[in-house]
Amino acid sequence: MKNFSEELEKRIKWVESVIEEFLPNEDTKQKIVMEAMNYSVRAGGKRLRPLLLSEMSEMFGMDKENVKPFMAVMEYIHTYSLVHDDLPAMDNDEYRRGRKTTHKQFGEAIGILAGDALLNYAFETGINAILTFEYPKRAVAALAVIASKSGIYGMIGGQTVDIISEGKQLDKDTLDYINELKTGALIEASMMAGAILAGADEEEIFTIERAASKIGQAFQIQDDVLDVISTTKELGKPVHSDEKNCKSTYVNLMDVEKAKDEVKRLSDEAVLELKSLKRENQFLFKLIEWLINRTK
Amino acid sequence: MKNFSEELEKRIKWVESVIEEFLPNEDTKQKIVMEAMNYSVRAGGKRLRPLLLSEMSEMFGMDKENVKPFMAVMEYIHTYSLVHDDLPAMDNDEYRRGRKTTHKQFGEAIGILAGDALLNYAFETGINAILTFEYPKRAVAALAVIASKSGIYGMIGGQTVDIISEGKQLDKDTLDYINELKTGALIEASMMAGAILAGADEEEIFTIERAASKIGQAFQIQDDVLDVISTTKELGKPVHSDEKNCKSTYVNLMDVEKAKDEVKRLSDEAVLELKSLKRENQFLFKLIEWLINRTK
Repeated sequence: MKNFSEELEKRIKWVESVIEEFLPNEDTKQKIVMEAMNYSVRAGGKRLRPLLLSEMSEMFGMDKENVKPFMAVMEYIHTYSLVHDDLPAMDNDEYRRGRKTTHKQFGEAIGILAGDALLNYAFETGINAILTFEYPKRAVAALAVIASKSGIYGMIGGQTVDIISEGKQLDKDTLDYINELKTGALIEASMMAGAILAGADEEEIFTIERAASKIGQAFQIQDDVLDVISTTKELGKPVHSDEKNCKSTYVNLMDVEKAKDEVKRLSDEAVLELKSLKRENQFLFKLIEWLINRTK
Repeated sequence: MKNFSEELEKRIKWVESVIEEFLPNEDTKQKIVMEAMNYSVRAGGKRLRPLLLSEMSEMFGMDKENVKPFMAVMEYIHTYSLVHDDLPAMDNDEYRRGRKTTHKQFGEAIGILAGDALLNYAFETGINAILTFEYPKRAVAALAVIASKSGIYGMIGGQTVDIISEGKQLDKDTLDYINELKTGALIEASMMAGAILAGADEEEIFTIERAASKIGQAFQIQDDVLDVISTTKELGKPVHSDEKNCKSTYVNLMDVEKAKDEVKRLSDEAVLELKSLKRENQFLFKLIEWLINRTK
C-alpha cells in the first residue's frame, strides 16, 4: 500500500456514505427527533467502528457491500452513547467536534429522545437486516455480540463505573476495567461482528476479541497521552481536559514515555494476534498502526 | 369464566415471575445500574403488555411458556420509556406508583443509564431468544415489529410530538396521533408479536393491529376520564394532574359522558375485530372489557 492516508480517506468516505444510507427521512410530525438523530450522526469522527467491521468482513472473504446495515448499527450505537454522555447530568459538554452537542442544539428532552431513538433504530436496522442477509444465523450471532458488548456487561457497564468513579483517584486495574468496557467493548463488537458475518469460526472469534481488546486499550492510552502532549490546534479539541476534569488517566499512573511504550506493546501484540489468523488485510494492519501513532 | 378478577390476579402473578426471571444479576463493579434497572421493573403496574403478548400467543395455539423472553422484552421497553419520561428534562416526576422514580432514587446520571440499559437489555434478551425459539423466522419477524413500534415511527415518535406540543391546545387529530404512537404502538406490538410467534398469518396480524390500536385509544381516553372523575384515593395517584400540567386530553375536547361513550364504542369494535379471527380466548375478551371499565 503506497499511500495509506489516501486509501484511508477513500474508505472513510465510503463508510460515511453507508452510514448516511440508513439514516431516517426527516418527515412526519415528529421529524425533530429524526433531525436530531441525523445531526448527531453527521457530526463526523473517525468512523472507526464501522470501518473495523467492514475490514474484518473483507479479511474473512466477504464483500463489504453485504455488511452495510451492520456497519450502520455500530455507528448509531456509538453515536447514541456520545449524545447521552454529553447530557448535563453526565459530562455536561456543550461542544463536540466544533459543533453544539445535540442537547444544546435541540434542547435536553429531544437530546434524551434522540439518543434513545438512535439505540432503538440501531437494533431496528440490525433486526431488519437478518432476513435479507445471506446467512441469517450469522447475522443473529453478530447482533447478539453487538447487543451484549453495548450493554450492562459492556459499554453501559463501563460508563456506569466511570460515572461512579468521578473525582476518585483510580488504580490501574479500575482504569483498565473502565476503558475495556467503555471504549474496548464496541471495538471488540465491531471486529467480532465483521468476522462472524463473514463466517469466521469460534476460535478465530476469540483471537479477534483478544486483539480488539488490546487495540481498544492502546487507543485509549494514546488518547490520554495526546491530551497531555498536544496543543489545542494540533488536537482540534481542548487539551489538558482530563486534568481540568480531575479525570484519572494512564498518564497519572505512569509517565508519558512509559504510556507511549505501553501503546506500542499493546498494538504490536494485537497485530501479532491478527496475523496468527493467516488472513490477509494489509490495510487493516496499517490502520491499527495509524490508530496508535495518530497525533489527533 | 366465573371469577375474572381472581383469574386476572393469577395470570399477572405468572407474568411477574416471567419478568423477574430475565432480570440481570446485581453483580460486577457496575451493579448500581443493574440495581436501578431492577428497581424500575419491580415498581409494579398492570403488566398489560406482556400479558397481552402471552394471551395472543395462547389464542393462536402456542404454549405461553415458549414466549416468555418476548414478554420480558415488552415490559423492559415499557419500563425504560417510563424511566426516561420521568427525568427532569421530560415530565420531571418524583414519584411513580408511590415510590421514588428511578432518577430520584439513584441520581440523574444512573437514571439515564438505567433507561438506556433496559432498552439495550430488552433487545439483548430478544435477540438471544431467536436461536432457542422453535421458529426463528417468526421470532425475527416479531422482534422487527417490536423494534419498529418502539421507535421513531412508534412510541418514541409519540413521545416527541407530546414533548413539542406541551402547553398547546391540541385538536383531536393531533391528540389521536400522540396517543396512537405513545400508548397504542406498544400495545399493538405486544398483541402482534404474540400472534406472530404463534404463527398467525399476515391478514390476521393486520386485524390484530387494528384491534390493538382501538384498545390503545380506548385505554388512553379512559385514563383521561379517570383523571377527571376519580379521587386520589380511588386512583392511587394524584388526580386532575392533566389540568395542572396544562395537558391536552380527550376530556378537554368532549365532555366526560361523550368520552365514556367513545371508550365503549372503541372497545366494542376491538372485540368484534378479534372475534372475527374465530379463535377462542374468553379471558382476553374479558380483559379488554376490564381495561376500559376499570376505575384505576
